[in-house]
Amino acid sequence: MKTEGVVYLVGSGPGDPELLTVKALRLMQTADVVVYDRLVSPEIMAMIPPGVSRIAVGKSPGMHCVPQHEINALLTRLARKSRMIVRLKGGDPFVFGRGSEEALHLRRQGVRYEVVPGLTAASAVSCYAGIPLTHRSMSRGVRMVTGHFRDGEVLDLDWEKLADASATLVVYMGLSNLEIIARQLMQAGRAADTPAAVIQEGTTPRQRMVQATLSTLSREVERAGLSSPVMIIIGETVTLADQLAWYQPREMSNETPCLDRR
Amino acid sequence: MKTEGVVYLVGSGPGDPELLTVKALRLMQTADVVVYDRLVSPEIMAMIPPGVSRIAVGKSPGMHCVPQHEINALLTRLARKSRMIVRLKGGDPFVFGRGSEEALHLRRQGVRYEVVPGLTAASAVSCYAGIPLTHRSMSRGVRMVTGHFRDGEVLDLDWEKLADASATLVVYMGLSNLEIIARQLMQAGRAADTPAAVIQEGTTPRQRMVQATLSTLSREVERAGLSSPVMIIIGETVTLADQLAWYQPREMSNETPCLDRR
Repeated sequence: MKTEGVVYLVGSGPGDPELLTVKALRLMQTADVVVYDRLVSPEIMAMIPPGVSRIAVGKSPGMHCVPQHEINALLTRLARKSRMIVRLKGGDPFVFGRGSEEALHLRRQGVRYEVVPGLTAASAVSCYAGIPLTHRSMSRGVRMVTGHFRDGEVLDLDWEKLADASATLVVYMGLSNLEIIARQLMQAGRAADTPAAVIQEGTTPRQRMVQATLSTLSREVERAGLSSPVMIIIGETVTLADQLAWYQPREMSNETPCLDRR
Repeated sequence: MKTEGVVYLVGSGPGDPELLTVKALRLMQTADVVVYDRLVSPEIMAMIPPGVSRIAVGKSPGMHCVPQHEINALLTRLARKSRMIVRLKGGDPFVFGRGSEEALHLRRQGVRYEVVPGLTAASAVSCYAGIPLTHRSMSRGVRMVTGHFRDGEVLDLDWEKLADASATLVVYMGLSNLEIIARQLMQAGRAADTPAAVIQEGTTPRQRMVQATLSTLSREVERAGLSSPVMIIIGETVTLADQLAWYQPREMSNETPCLDRR
């Protein structure tokens, strides 16, 4: 059955409202209803005008959440009675965002949709941390992987392929498996003294970074007491942060972000 | 010598002005001068207000261009006489953008800078092509690599590591080396029937896509007459485009894009 409503699967980026795309901001501000994850920052939620309905479908590790099939069903139901639905996700819908599962569901139900890319954490966090993902003579590519699987699943990654010294490795949501990840990479041939960093809440005023090596990273991160969400970056370019880090995180003031609230 | 000006190394994303970040748009519209690559789209250049100076430092494959050290020197010179310089790049400054080389130069010269991430083509183009970079049971990660090296350099990539069936492989600027890339991946163990796509000018009204397999891709792309810039995507998720492709490219109308021109 064809319906009238359109669902926009929108990536909201890493958390800073100024790192939303112009398109994401426009859609959020003209939507009838916004369905959002817990990964969407409060600062971004504050950009939605008061008249727009909001529905939380929390999906963050370890928290009670709405199962994917219920989110799918909700989106279809909303599309049958609303004109414009924004499904707001942290980061990018097509990079560890499960946006494609929702898009497939909508397609099968005959609901119109569009996919709006957002800044994935690897890209945004690396810029703010001063760690280039590629850099001449240091890294000729990027590898992104998730370090968190659903409860009960084993972290059975192809460590040989991941232990590629020619590329920067970025691990999403890997804090609880940090020690395993570092050990497996070393066993697969990555040098123990490979530079590595963990960045907590990158791009936000709460950003914190620990720099170490593959062999010392887990210990240093524990000592510093970092907590999720974090991004792990492994590779030679991590050393450039000593020169390139420019972002001075500070606690949020009460200033309104410099954005147009149409 | 410390100077007063600030250089913003800004990623402009894939080309659609609505896929600029809010921050990129604000900086472009309040800059004293914008230094831009040829990879920045005309539609994005049109968002810069008339009073802002523009300096082209074309860098695109095969075209005459300003050498990197001259761009570096230009940015320093501008920082000594202007308050706010935007260095505008296609995509993301830290993903194949050489932004880190410019940042290192500025740091050494004592020039203040910030890095503003932009949507890298892999993320933006995949969303518009309906090809998720990750998808349950099909792809558990992403690998990005460039398929173009400077004149005279050999494409000596680690094909064994790239031929990883668990991740989606995205190749930037690989059109002229497409046949070599496909052949090397097959020799390294990637199946000849692995789904693969080439997308020309993704996210723009000129977007065109060819879907094939690793063994037929080069021939099909030649037959269709695709031209640069293109993005190559290799992996199981390419098949999902049959269901998920939603973007209907059309030739540009004379409509003004729906953006606020402050």
